[in-house]
Amino acid sequence: MYNRVALIGLGLIASSMFWAIKRGGLAGEVTGYARSQATRDTARRIGLCDTVCDSAAEAVAGADLVILCVPVGVMGDVAAEIGPHLASGATVSDVGSVKRAVIDAVAPHLPDTVHFVPGHPLAGTEHSGPESGFAELFDNRWTLLVPVEGSDADAVARLRGLWEGMGAYVDEMEPDHHDLVLAVTSHAPHLIAYTMVGVADDLRRVTDSEVIKYSAAGFRDFTRIAASDPTMWRDVFLNNKDATLEILGRFTEELFALQRAIRRGDGDHLHAYFTRTRAIRRGIIEAGQDTDAPDFGRGGKR
Amino acid sequence: MYNRVALIGLGLIASSMFWAIKRGGLAGEVTGYARSQATRDTARRIGLCDTVCDSAAEAVAGADLVILCVPVGVMGDVAAEIGPHLASGATVSDVGSVKRAVIDAVAPHLPDTVHFVPGHPLAGTEHSGPESGFAELFDNRWTLLVPVEGSDADAVARLRGLWEGMGAYVDEMEPDHHDLVLAVTSHAPHLIAYTMVGVADDLRRVTDSEVIKYSAAGFRDFTRIAASDPTMWRDVFLNNKDATLEILGRFTEELFALQRAIRRGDGDHLHAYFTRTRAIRRGIIEAGQDTDAPDFGRGGKR
Repeated sequence: MYNRVALIGLGLIASSMFWAIKRGGLAGEVTGYARSQATRDTARRIGLCDTVCDSAAEAVAGADLVILCVPVGVMGDVAAEIGPHLASGATVSDVGSVKRAVIDAVAPHLPDTVHFVPGHPLAGTEHSGPESGFAELFDNRWTLLVPVEGSDADAVARLRGLWEGMGAYVDEMEPDHHDLVLAVTSHAPHLIAYTMVGVADDLRRVTDSEVIKYSAAGFRDFTRIAASDPTMWRDVFLNNKDATLEILGRFTEELFALQRAIRRGDGDHLHAYFTRTRAIRRGIIEAGQDTDAPDFGRGGKR
Repeated sequence: MYNRVALIGLGLIASSMFWAIKRGGLAGEVTGYARSQATRDTARRIGLCDTVCDSAAEAVAGADLVILCVPVGVMGDVAAEIGPHLASGATVSDVGSVKRAVIDAVAPHLPDTVHFVPGHPLAGTEHSGPESGFAELFDNRWTLLVPVEGSDADAVARLRGLWEGMGAYVDEMEPDHHDLVLAVTSHAPHLIAYTMVGVADDLRRVTDSEVIKYSAAGFRDFTRIAASDPTMWRDVFLNNKDATLEILGRFTEELFALQRAIRRGDGDHLHAYFTRTRAIRRGIIEAGQDTDAPDFGRGGKR
């Protein structure tokens, strides 16, 4: 589908893309670059990318698809670095969790001769780094493409084909709406999980050892979320500030209402609320985004 | 280990206990009772319990161990019902997620001739009902025994043996401390997850369908938690009010500090916080309460 794909940044997403591209035979060649020498060494050792280059410029030379797989906060710097070296007619995309800020940071550095088609695969684990990837990461998950004004329709269609080849479902979305949807489904939940895990650690009357031993239900799911890459998430919050803060504002408003129901002993309010949230879970299972199997992670094994 | 065990209430925990008792050959006979005729019919159909009785009194007659597996809010009523029918020397226990309130509700109804040893298995799934149980639910999970003043040491040891036979690790804990630990590790996280799922549903600019389709990371873990049994959780919050409200107070304080860091663009604060929470996750994995495998529930499959 592409002659040469360049992956800039070699973490969980890029390494999974490489294995998925290989699985599907979707590109003639894949080059890769990571800023850290240690990451490049690891990539070479485990056969991640056909060629690991020592500069981003070298990696993108002659590529007809370049995908920026770096934290949102450095997308602009990387774009500035590769801009002059991009092949005419190439497509540039990214995998950042925030789209408006990435577009604003990247677009000014790209020559008019390339097609910019931002993207965001809604897939991940709490692991990071070049050794954390696997070919199945995107299977049956959504990838959102967020074409900018004037994005070439053929370039969008070709990139969609690549993602579908890697196993993903693909939708297109407008950047600001993307950032709001993700604030709800991902960014606010992550901040909340981080917060709760921090509170547990702070509480002196309950030891860390007790928290760890007895975290059977609820809390363990939070710790998994809160173990995600700190740099990536710092950048997400700083770059999707408005939508995240809006959702958190609604969240605390709602939380206060439930706290008030607890304080007053209003069991009917609580029961009605919990019944409603259960229905949303059923919707997710019916939409095929999760399985109905009991969660053995909470029950005993995963 | 016991001649006759009576399970009062036949939901997820009781049905898992039955299968675990059978797996281990831990009791001569297990009787069961559920208030609802439909539940009793289902239990008979699937072979849940050696005998399903049509009254709690009948189920506990001659039992040397009676375990109350009903929502925390009805423990007192059930204790009042069975009190006069308990065999002399029997042990009475429970599986409620709150201990102080259960002790206060149940103890007054028990004759002096029985041993009361409250308990709480830290295991569960988001499923409920008589068909949701499985023998492995307690394997390598903690069960907390919360002996009351004057609990007979032999009765406690025997009950500990039963839980260990069902695959659990067992610790003893004082009731108020139990309720605080659980407020941190389970009750507050559940309320937070319920709240976030409710907020998503309320937000009119993002459709339920979008929330459901694009809930790749974070949110899906919340929906699983928020799908737990509404009656059980209503009773938990109403009966562990003080500890839950205390933890929620600390949580919102901490959340406001992180919101402020986002608003001000204080990336160092965020990065340091997220790095600290990641370490807690490592502690949980090292303590053997979860596995280090990538969470395929978020990444593609479970």
